[in-house]
Order: sequence, then C-alpha cells, then structure tokens
Amino acid sequence: MDWVQRSLVLPTHSLGFYPITQNILRELPEIQKVQTGLLHLFLQHTSAALTINENADSDVLEDLISGLDRLAPETASYRHIIEGKDDMPAHIKSSLFSVSLSIPVANGQLLLGVWQDIYLCEFRRIPHRRHLILTLQGIFQEVPKT
Amino acid sequence: MDWVQRSLVLPTHSLGFYPITQNILRELPEIQKVQTGLLHLFLQHTSAALTINENADSDVLEDLISGLDRLAPETASYRHIIEGKDDMPAHIKSSLFSVSLSIPVANGQLLLGVWQDIYLCEFRRIPHRRHLILTLQGIFQEVPKT
Amino acid sequence: MDWVQRSLVLPTHSLGFYPITQNILRELPEIQKVQTGLLHLFLQHTSAALTINENADSDVLEDLISGLDRLAPETASYRHIIEGKDDMPAHIKSSLFSVSLSIPVANGQLLLGVWQDIYLCEFRRIPHRRHLILTLQGIFQEVPKT
Repeated sequence: MDWVQRSLVLPTHSLGFYPITQNILRELPEIQKVQTGLLHLFLQHTSAALTINENADSDVLEDLISGLDRLAPETASYRHIIEGKDDMPAHIKSSLFSVSLSIPVANGQLLLGVWQDIYLCEFRRIPHRRHLILTLQGIFQEVPKT
Repeated sequence: MDWVQRSLVLPTHSLGFYPITQNILRELPEIQKVQTGLLHLFLQHTSAALTINENADSDVLEDLISGLDRLAPETASYRHIIEGKDDMPAHIKSSLFSVSLSIPVANGQLLLGVWQDIYLCEFRRIPHRRHLILTLQGIFQEVPKT
Repeated sequence: MDWVQRSLVLPTHSLGFYPITQNILRELPEIQKVQTGLLHLFLQHTSAALTINENADSDVLEDLISGLDRLAPETASYRHIIEGKDDMPAHIKSSLFSVSLSIPVANGQLLLGVWQDIYLCEFRRIPHRRHLILTLQGIFQEVPKT
C-alpha cells in the first residue's frame, strides 16, 4: 500500500471545459505502477469545478456550458456582485459540479469509460491559475508496467 | 489493509432510478469483513449517474426525475442532437449528479442512513448495460462477520 | 497506513449553510498527525448535503441558497408532499450537491484552498440533528505535529 500526493497548476484563459486526463497521467507516472487503487482529485477553488463527461464530440462541452448558464444565469439577481457578474454564477456551478472526484485505478490505468474524460471546468471569464491536488493510493507493483 | 476491486454490469430498460444497494452487497460479500473502510463506486458512463436518496417513498424518485427534467429539458436548444433529444439532457444530468461516490464501511456494513439507498440513475430512454466499478478498501477482519 | 472513523452530530436550526471545518478539526485531532492522506465526509441524510464553497463573504452563501431555490422551487408541482412543501426540494438539492466528499490531507492539515470552507447544507426549515461520518486514512507520523 503506497501513497503519492502531488500538486498541479492548470492555467485557464476563459470560461470553458479543459480536458486534463493527459495532464494527470503526465504528472503522475506512478499510476502505471498501481495494481489496484484510487486516484483522488481535488480543486482548491470555489469558482471552478471538476467533472467527467464526453470525450468525443466537443458540442457536448458547449451544451454543458450553456446548460449550466441556464441553471445559474448572470442575469439573475445576486447579492455578491463585487467580483463581477460572472462570479456568483461560478460559485453556484462549482457546488453543483463539485471540486472532489475519485477514479478507480487497475493494472496501471485509470478505469475511465470509453467515452469519459476528466475536465477542469473554468467558470470565470478572466484567466486563472487553478491548483489541483492529486492523491494516488493503492497497491503498487515492484516493476513499472510499460 | 486490503483492497478488493470488482466490476458489475447493471442493465437498465429506460429512464429511471434503479436501487443498487442490494446488488452491491451481493457482488461484494467482502464488505462483511471490513472493520473500518470505504467503498468507492464509479460509473463508466456519461449519460447516467450515481446518487444516494430516499429509500421509502417511490414518489421521491419520480419527483427527482421530473425535477431534473426541468433543469435539463429535452425542449431546450442543443448542438449535440445526433444521438437523440434525450442524450444531451442526459449528459448534463450526469455531471450534475456525478459518477463517483464513496460510502463509509464499519463493522461489516455500509454506513448508510436509515432513509438512504444507492441509485443508478439512467438518463437515456433506450435500454443500456451500465458498468460500475466497485473499489473496497479498509481493515479486514480475519473471521467473516455473520 | 492508519484509519480513524468517527461520527459527529451537527444540530441545525433551519434552512442554511453551516460552516463545519472547525467542527471537523476539533473532532479529528488525528488530522494533525497525517503526513499524506484523505479525509472522507459522509452525511447520512437525504434532505441535506455537503459542499465546499466561499469562506469570506457570507453573501455568497445567501446567493447559493436562493440559487438552489430557483433550481428546486417549493412552488413546483411534486407528488411527495406529505412531509411539507420544503421536503421534496430538499431531496433534489441533496442529490445535486451530494452527501459524499473527500479532502486531501498533508503535513497535518486539510489541503483546502485559501477561500474554501466545508459546509453542511440544511435544506429543511425545521431544526434537525444531522449525522456526519468522518473517515480519515493515511500515513500517520509517530510524533504529533504541533
């Protein structure tokens, strides 16, 4: 049973869904050594989130963004407006999607479904540097899997 | 400290909430041996989800379904329509509810509340075979608890 | 590798977001001994939830509450009305926000972001006693960190 914990900074340029599966695999080559385990992701922010969704048709991502906009529209009336009209909707979206996510690992691979990819969801319009904590735990093999 | 990881295929026939707590307990009898631990559930799909909610009044499940329909209606305008008008709403609902869930385990039992049950939420109208990854970790007792 | 699991009762007086980070730290002083690990929180209820959001401006919490009210309004038509008109909206909000949450731990501290706090979200109008299961796992140091 082993643990690896690492921090990853992910720059975003504007509102959007950023695929981060490859960033995670590059940052944590130890995943390849895990026989059975779990990878936990945690985003240290309150106006962004993590999600898993479609990896093939980018229209799905566009529809997710506009679907969320309908749920937390900038045009609604908010008390917290000091950081811009996109800020409070971003807080609501962050809690709806969540900042904590776990993915099973087996035989050196994330057990994502065929159509699944991991996304950092940026809900603010201006560029940000988002901090992601990766915590990998499991039974590690002696010899790295290739 | 031990790990057990298993895959479970759950057939669905149409849109609805399917209680899966008993399926999980049957598939993972090792839960009965766990003194202290966690069970992680992961659904490998992007148009279905997992949730925990009321286990007594089935009206709650009906209201959850229609409540979600209001949040991601089929009548809204979407770009991704190639897989049917129920598909994009299903993607939105999947991210709102999430595909990753952990439940504490103690003395051989899932620590669910009195009114809680685990559900597979099928958001597509046509039948599917949904793949669930179960990852159990914890301190296992030597003698199975009865 | 060690495990600590504990139960915490949190009284609520009405609908609202209750900060619980300090309650958790008081209840689990073992967090201070964890070099690398994870804290899992699980709420044993179906009309309340857990979330992580802004810890500075309480207006954000008010806006989250009214933002959720727009998503699951008491004025909508529901089948499950026997427990009051705030009950079914509470079930919907519970599944939207989730009752399961994990937070990374390192060097004796929860790795929350600067603006993050953990909240118990009470969605019912009448007072409740909410049960939270805390499961801490990780590599524990021999000497407690001060």
